[in-house]
Amino acid sequence: MAEDFTVTPWEVTGDIDYELLAERFGTSPIDDKLLSRLKGYGDLHMMLRRGIFYSHRDLNVILDEYDKGNKFILYTGRGPSGHTHLGHIMPWMFNKWVQDKFDVDMYFQFTDDEKFLFKQDATLQDTKKMAYENALDMIALGFDTKRTKIILDTENVKTMYPIALKVAKKINLSTAKAVFGFDNTTNIGSIFYTSMQSVPAFLASELAGRNIPCLIPCGIDQDPHFRACRDVAPGLGYMKPGQIYCKMFPGLSGADKMSSSDPMATIYTTDNQKEVKKKVGKAFTGGCVSVEEQREKGGNPEVCAIFKYNYYLFENDDGKLNELSKKCRSGEILCGECKAALTERINVFLEKHQEKREKAKDVIHDMTFEGFRW
Amino acid sequence: MAEDFTVTPWEVTGDIDYELLAERFGTSPIDDKLLSRLKGYGDLHMMLRRGIFYSHRDLNVILDEYDKGNKFILYTGRGPSGHTHLGHIMPWMFNKWVQDKFDVDMYFQFTDDEKFLFKQDATLQDTKKMAYENALDMIALGFDTKRTKIILDTENVKTMYPIALKVAKKINLSTAKAVFGFDNTTNIGSIFYTSMQSVPAFLASELAGRNIPCLIPCGIDQDPHFRACRDVAPGLGYMKPGQIYCKMFPGLSGADKMSSSDPMATIYTTDNQKEVKKKVGKAFTGGCVSVEEQREKGGNPEVCAIFKYNYYLFENDDGKLNELSKKCRSGEILCGECKAALTERINVFLEKHQEKREKAKDVIHDMTFEGFRW
Repeated sequence: MAEDFTVTPWEVTGDIDYELLAERFGTSPIDDKLLSRLKGYGDLHMMLRRGIFYSHRDLNVILDEYDKGNKFILYTGRGPSGHTHLGHIMPWMFNKWVQDKFDVDMYFQFTDDEKFLFKQDATLQDTKKMAYENALDMIALGFDTKRTKIILDTENVKTMYPIALKVAKKINLSTAKAVFGFDNTTNIGSIFYTSMQSVPAFLASELAGRNIPCLIPCGIDQDPHFRACRDVAPGLGYMKPGQIYCKMFPGLSGADKMSSSDPMATIYTTDNQKEVKKKVGKAFTGGCVSVEEQREKGGNPEVCAIFKYNYYLFENDDGKLNELSKKCRSGEILCGECKAALTERINVFLEKHQEKREKAKDVIHDMTFEGFRW
Repeated sequence: MAEDFTVTPWEVTGDIDYELLAERFGTSPIDDKLLSRLKGYGDLHMMLRRGIFYSHRDLNVILDEYDKGNKFILYTGRGPSGHTHLGHIMPWMFNKWVQDKFDVDMYFQFTDDEKFLFKQDATLQDTKKMAYENALDMIALGFDTKRTKIILDTENVKTMYPIALKVAKKINLSTAKAVFGFDNTTNIGSIFYTSMQSVPAFLASELAGRNIPCLIPCGIDQDPHFRACRDVAPGLGYMKPGQIYCKMFPGLSGADKMSSSDPMATIYTTDNQKEVKKKVGKAFTGGCVSVEEQREKGGNPEVCAIFKYNYYLFENDDGKLNELSKKCRSGEILCGECKAALTERINVFLEKHQEKREKAKDVIHDMTFEGFRW
């Protein structure tokens, strides 16, 4: 039996039972029927095939509207508390795939206000600067520069605040405490903040003066925000946004979520080749204590961080992934070989990514909502 | 002994004991020593002489700074929930006097967000429009059109929000509940709102990059906001704003506070002469049931709404006021005469005010902070 776990937008601890989490949150599984409906739009993304994006709210409703010609707007975001790591870009890659597949506009929200409010020692200068750095990574992934708008809360607040106020007026303290676990020590900005995270879900509708569906692909840890957001939508005359949720990207230490609080278990998009080699070299694997034992008994890919990295991000080919799993279990391949191969893959990826990241500086100001500048 | 009473920024009920209220809030009396210091700057305003502005926080500190050549910025405001009545303009008149006397800049804040959040059926369109109407009344009182800036929260939020976030981060839920009496039914926007009311106290300092003292003359019902504001100031590197507080303007019904919930006991700046006559005619007085009895026993000006209107606003001459009081007590003057005289005074005032109010439309957009337009 899994130990108990906590998943909130600000804290992920324990050994996460994702089925139980979806049950607790009340989200629906992406079942075979829904997968085959999604397949109707073209090949399934590897993160759907593998159950990494595994749970949803109202995805069918969003697709029904799409089929009727009412395109959704895509919305995801990032709390700019530090440099971008692989755990952040995993769902962003999925968003990019959705944008391409469905040919839709997108809001990418950077919540500099949130990170200022929730991180004791953060300044607004820090979180705003970090939003710029994070946005470069987002752009480097190839989002459509014309169809994607970057929202920065403190810069776009004039348009956002009236919508946030309407949301805030519909959420009482009792609900906020129940949904987010706030207590008497929580600051009053943090209590209000969820209203700002609701805004991009309603923004396109507000600007168009008619209901535009919204689909939000993101980590399931964000569900409390969108549960609150969905609850208030009908009362404000908006359509409820749909969500498609992924699991957390694992840390190299074997933890369930890659976290900046453990930099050695975290690969940043700005890491150099030597750093990557060092971090992957120290990763937790499913190997045995000796080569002999591993050749005899085999390794365990299920607990192996290296295998998870291939599973979540770096091995798109299901056949090759199965092959790797078999070779591990049979003792045919050893941890050192897997580590070397993953290091190579990550470094190839990062080399290209870092080039695109530099080029993103030329277009970032063409992509800001309402034309703000850093 | 006075009945119990409640005074918060959103509710004033019961028979207010102003000395006890100041004690509960922890504000200091404006004593003879302070009055004589104030007299050093020129004649005392009638509202100071009569103890209508009766309590303060750090007024001495603000004056010390002023004496050193560090001028304060004046700040007051209005929650635009309805049309302006005499109860609103009473402290505004005092603000105008302070502006002239000390030759200082001023922020006049219209909290359209607050009134939207706290009034169940208000829309943001309503509160924004009402802010325009109220601002005309403010301008009609003769504030310096160059030195006075109108802040409208939803319009100026881009500059205000980062300051509000810094304030909000320093106020926890426990404090907000204790200061404002919030409970589980309070919406999360209302809980955050006080941060926005703190902003004008720090805005001049923020924009100048150095500490500029701030003096806030307003009703004592606003003290909870400024208590919270003062508490966070040092931690943010700002000087604590000083306050000078007045009593609530009485209703014509004899109630301690003029209130829009009782329109017949409330004189609006837009009332016509007939309406004023009718409302004053129905006012609660300190008279007796019959002319004979009043001639014999005299009236009681202490409980009389008509007398209070002269005391608070319409009889600037202390000698004449005392004369009126004596004539009432001796039965020399009857309620009908007093009502007729007050009606005349109010109508003379309103006639001129309404003219100036029309002219205010020509300058209102020159006075908005950062040049916003309604």
